[in-house]
Amino acid sequence: MNDYAKPLNRLINEMNRLPGIGGKTAQRLAFHILSMEDKEAFALADAIREAKTAMRYCSVCGNLTEEDPCGICADGSRDQSVICVVENARDVVAMERIREYRGLYHVLHGAISPMDGIGPEDINLKSLITRLQDERVQELILATNPTIEGEATAMYIARLIRPSGIRVTRIAHGVPVGGDLEYADEVTLLKAIEGRREL
Amino acid sequence: MNDYAKPLNRLINEMNRLPGIGGKTAQRLAFHILSMEDKEAFALADAIREAKTAMRYCSVCGNLTEEDPCGICADGSRDQSVICVVENARDVVAMERIREYRGLYHVLHGAISPMDGIGPEDINLKSLITRLQDERVQELILATNPTIEGEATAMYIARLIRPSGIRVTRIAHGVPVGGDLEYADEVTLLKAIEGRREL
Repeated sequence: MNDYAKPLNRLINEMNRLPGIGGKTAQRLAFHILSMEDKEAFALADAIREAKTAMRYCSVCGNLTEEDPCGICADGSRDQSVICVVENARDVVAMERIREYRGLYHVLHGAISPMDGIGPEDINLKSLITRLQDERVQELILATNPTIEGEATAMYIARLIRPSGIRVTRIAHGVPVGGDLEYADEVTLLKAIEGRREL
Repeated sequence: MNDYAKPLNRLINEMNRLPGIGGKTAQRLAFHILSMEDKEAFALADAIREAKTAMRYCSVCGNLTEEDPCGICADGSRDQSVICVVENARDVVAMERIREYRGLYHVLHGAISPMDGIGPEDINLKSLITRLQDERVQELILATNPTIEGEATAMYIARLIRPSGIRVTRIAHGVPVGGDLEYADEVTLLKAIEGRREL
């Protein structure tokens, strides 16, 4: 009786596999789930199963969607001349939240990272090249993360696309709005100075 | 297309209801679940459902168990003269891990907390009183947490049981082994001094 009962142990192990959920947290969550009403616990289980069943990736842009193609790709009123390239589907949601960008997206599902053995062929890049055959596309905004991997991916795509004559831009790096210069790291400050604009 | 798709939104909301899982973490976990293999995601959903279905509370001690009564209560080789009172089932696991205590347990499923409107009648106390009718019981170890609520609960139970002549003890408070005096708070140090023992 030194270990947990099997069903509990299994639940703890499954929770433990989620990112950022360590052993102790998995234990705490599992015990919490057992203390929940049956209805609530089953609702959680069903939500996982249903989301996993109902959601798929858009065959055009790679975004998460219930219908294929996704709402953004299917929306003819959006600007078909700009494609914003992001690393994952969460970034699409973040971009959509600013309610300003009206172009299309392309989700890479990752970034090039030789350290982790992720090369250009391991991300959703081929279909981007195919999309660029469409003559309406005039600009590619590279909005990968401002990390080493994100930068490397942006550089790679830029070099790949530039010969085609399509305009390739990168989102601006700098001091975040509401932030404090004092707490900005050197690289961010350097980027902020480099990217300065006439007022 | 500003919000998440419905199944995804539902999953995020359900994850968000778990303790310690805020909005951002719920989002991250939900997206991770969608990126998992079908098999893995369904395994998580099934683990929740199965654990919730298979596990129940022991009718004797209140511990989490697959069978009623639980393995500890059903184990005749354990010392029937001591009952260790803890706040929740996780505490039983922690106590069992020391492989030293061979008595029985009683799980309160909480602690008295007037601030939260939790009174003595809201925790698993009645069945403890019933268990004390068993003449084999000679000692009650109060192992509730060293918090205000845990202490209040221990005091309450001690006062309730003392007239019956059963020995009532409280686990020791003091500096944790491997800890550093310098970082111990004043109350812990005070308890450590008060509880000092002849060497």
